[in-house]
Amino acid sequence: MPKANQVHIKTHNNQLVLSTIYEQGPLSRAEIVHQTHLTAPTVSDLVTPLLAVGLVEEVGFGLSKGGKRPILLQVIDDARFIIGLDLGREDFRGALINLKGKVIYHNELPLQSRTGDAALGIVYELINDLIQHSSSPLLGIGIGAPGLVDSTTGIIRRAVNVEWQDIPLAALLKERFNLPVYMANDCQVAALAEYTYHNQAAVENLVVINAGYGIGAGIIIKGQALNGVPFGAGEIGHVQVVRPGEPCQCGNTGCLETLVSTRAILQQVQALRHGAMKGSLPEVTHFDQICRLFKSGDPLVQTVVNAAGHYLGAAIANTVSVLGPSRVTLSGSLSSLGEPFLDILREEISRRCRLPTMNYVTVDISSLGPDIVLLGASAQLLSHELGINRASGTWLGWG
Amino acid sequence: MPKANQVHIKTHNNQLVLSTIYEQGPLSRAEIVHQTHLTAPTVSDLVTPLLAVGLVEEVGFGLSKGGKRPILLQVIDDARFIIGLDLGREDFRGALINLKGKVIYHNELPLQSRTGDAALGIVYELINDLIQHSSSPLLGIGIGAPGLVDSTTGIIRRAVNVEWQDIPLAALLKERFNLPVYMANDCQVAALAEYTYHNQAAVENLVVINAGYGIGAGIIIKGQALNGVPFGAGEIGHVQVVRPGEPCQCGNTGCLETLVSTRAILQQVQALRHGAMKGSLPEVTHFDQICRLFKSGDPLVQTVVNAAGHYLGAAIANTVSVLGPSRVTLSGSLSSLGEPFLDILREEISRRCRLPTMNYVTVDISSLGPDIVLLGASAQLLSHELGINRASGTWLGWG
Repeated sequence: MPKANQVHIKTHNNQLVLSTIYEQGPLSRAEIVHQTHLTAPTVSDLVTPLLAVGLVEEVGFGLSKGGKRPILLQVIDDARFIIGLDLGREDFRGALINLKGKVIYHNELPLQSRTGDAALGIVYELINDLIQHSSSPLLGIGIGAPGLVDSTTGIIRRAVNVEWQDIPLAALLKERFNLPVYMANDCQVAALAEYTYHNQAAVENLVVINAGYGIGAGIIIKGQALNGVPFGAGEIGHVQVVRPGEPCQCGNTGCLETLVSTRAILQQVQALRHGAMKGSLPEVTHFDQICRLFKSGDPLVQTVVNAAGHYLGAAIANTVSVLGPSRVTLSGSLSSLGEPFLDILREEISRRCRLPTMNYVTVDISSLGPDIVLLGASAQLLSHELGINRASGTWLGWG
Repeated sequence: MPKANQVHIKTHNNQLVLSTIYEQGPLSRAEIVHQTHLTAPTVSDLVTPLLAVGLVEEVGFGLSKGGKRPILLQVIDDARFIIGLDLGREDFRGALINLKGKVIYHNELPLQSRTGDAALGIVYELINDLIQHSSSPLLGIGIGAPGLVDSTTGIIRRAVNVEWQDIPLAALLKERFNLPVYMANDCQVAALAEYTYHNQAAVENLVVINAGYGIGAGIIIKGQALNGVPFGAGEIGHVQVVRPGEPCQCGNTGCLETLVSTRAILQQVQALRHGAMKGSLPEVTHFDQICRLFKSGDPLVQTVVNAAGHYLGAAIANTVSVLGPSRVTLSGSLSSLGEPFLDILREEISRRCRLPTMNYVTVDISSLGPDIVLLGASAQLLSHELGINRASGTWLGWG
């Protein structure tokens, strides 16, 4: 592994030049001058260190406009790798991701019910493994964490699945690995991924409903993540929707999560199958099986998923009525239920709210797949360290 | 009435100097230089026209710092009046409001079930009356309108109470009265009033629940109004909360508004009183009576208001879970139910959501009273025409 090389490109003009090359490259220096309205000497001065630290390369010649043919510049996709971590699952996942959002290498370590320091140990183990597999200098570590995350201070206030309370995870990792660390709630980074890597025109007001092991919303307003004050925006999974309902990890009962998470759906299906057939049906132990049974028309699974869809649709209707976004995107394990599940959501949303504004909202499934939190975790580094907020047309997919 | 004098103070430095004097005056030119980081000649050049158009006055001398005693400048509270309109009620209300948010004169014209052009005629009549009563030049017209309002184009997309659909109200008024016109949803302008005139430190993330004839939320995020794309944020009154429920003006059934608006509460009380006592109880025809009966402990009214409070509390819990604001403020007629009603809301909110983030949210009643929409309507002009976004400490109350 090459020595971790922390390049901070933080001044406004530096970031402007780099993000212009990133988004629109290959570009000549003259084209950068034209795009950025900086002077030619300034652009030259700013490009030189980008070449020197190996973020940008010269890739041949453009068309001549009379004089010499201009040298074209582009960002080197693998110039740096970013460590992305997704801690919002039963297995902790990590990946090395290049500057264009391509997953170069990934790994996952099962939690196996470990909590507290033992769970923290898995995070260290995962990062060590990723560092060892990196063939490029590392830009830093980006984390999507479950529960209440204070992005400003880098502290996980509460993550019930691993029994963490007030863990200064960013500081711990910064000290241990000597790399920049950024952290946000897993649903928020999912929304950041959708904003950064969605391969279409920017949608400035966007809600990502991240529905899997937990349920939450990531919210982008005018291109900015909504954190809440000081955090806690998008916590739609912990609002009570049935009373009294089943106990929830948060301490309340009847929360949306107790009805709609992968755990909740699995448990309901298991209970019904057990009751219906006195145990003669094969055991359903993984949400993938639920997806297959749902798509194959299994009536019992369809009943459970239908009910879950209506609860989730109602919560989305509430969210849309508050925010008036132009797009709602489903991510997480539940998005594997596909278009028929989306239809259940859409039906419930339009039943709950008949305002004409609902016609402006697109409801779809994220195209970023199961890596969405990893991608969003890493996108924090693109934004904070390099000033790159949109991958736009140059993005080539992920591995 | 003096001739309407349209003063557009729109360049950045102009607005910076004016808002500095507005918020911190009386100030000397040297103090403005210190506050704004502009040069002394620039401040002098910018102050001269503010004096010339009569927005600012010289009010005596400050303490000497060695040389001559400096002349102090302050904004003249009554230099301009703003016409504020509140169209979200059974009676259309209008007021002349000075630059410090003081209501100088107000008027109301009952709709008496008029709709369409007849309702538009009442708006004209109201504005004519306000213009005739103005003793200062007018800065413009600010409107808080019910229903779906496209602030950008100044078009009321749908206001069911007056059967308006796609009415370009801003353009109609601009042409007729030759004044700048700004318009937003009545709940949004209520939030703007709370942000502009709340007599405490700025709360950057704020939700105003405006609950009266209709129910909606006005949302401020990072000091900016949330409109939705293209509008429709905060429309929490038109989400179905019971099924099938009573028909709603929006075309759906069982919306929050069918359970919690002043109309809904009045109807429920009337029906119950009629049923309970076979008509022997005195008729309840106005929401003021409901407030009195609620506070006096009338059990029937308490039952109805309690139920309404729990529905509204649940909707607020949803809204808070999405936005994570630091403050939720109740305005509109329902706020007259006072602290006991707030307790019902708080109880339901904390029952619905037990996340520790809920501890960061203050739930209170707006101190701006029944004029909140008028004040917010006028605050649009302060912001758009004069660049003044916060009235801060200098605010003296309203008439």
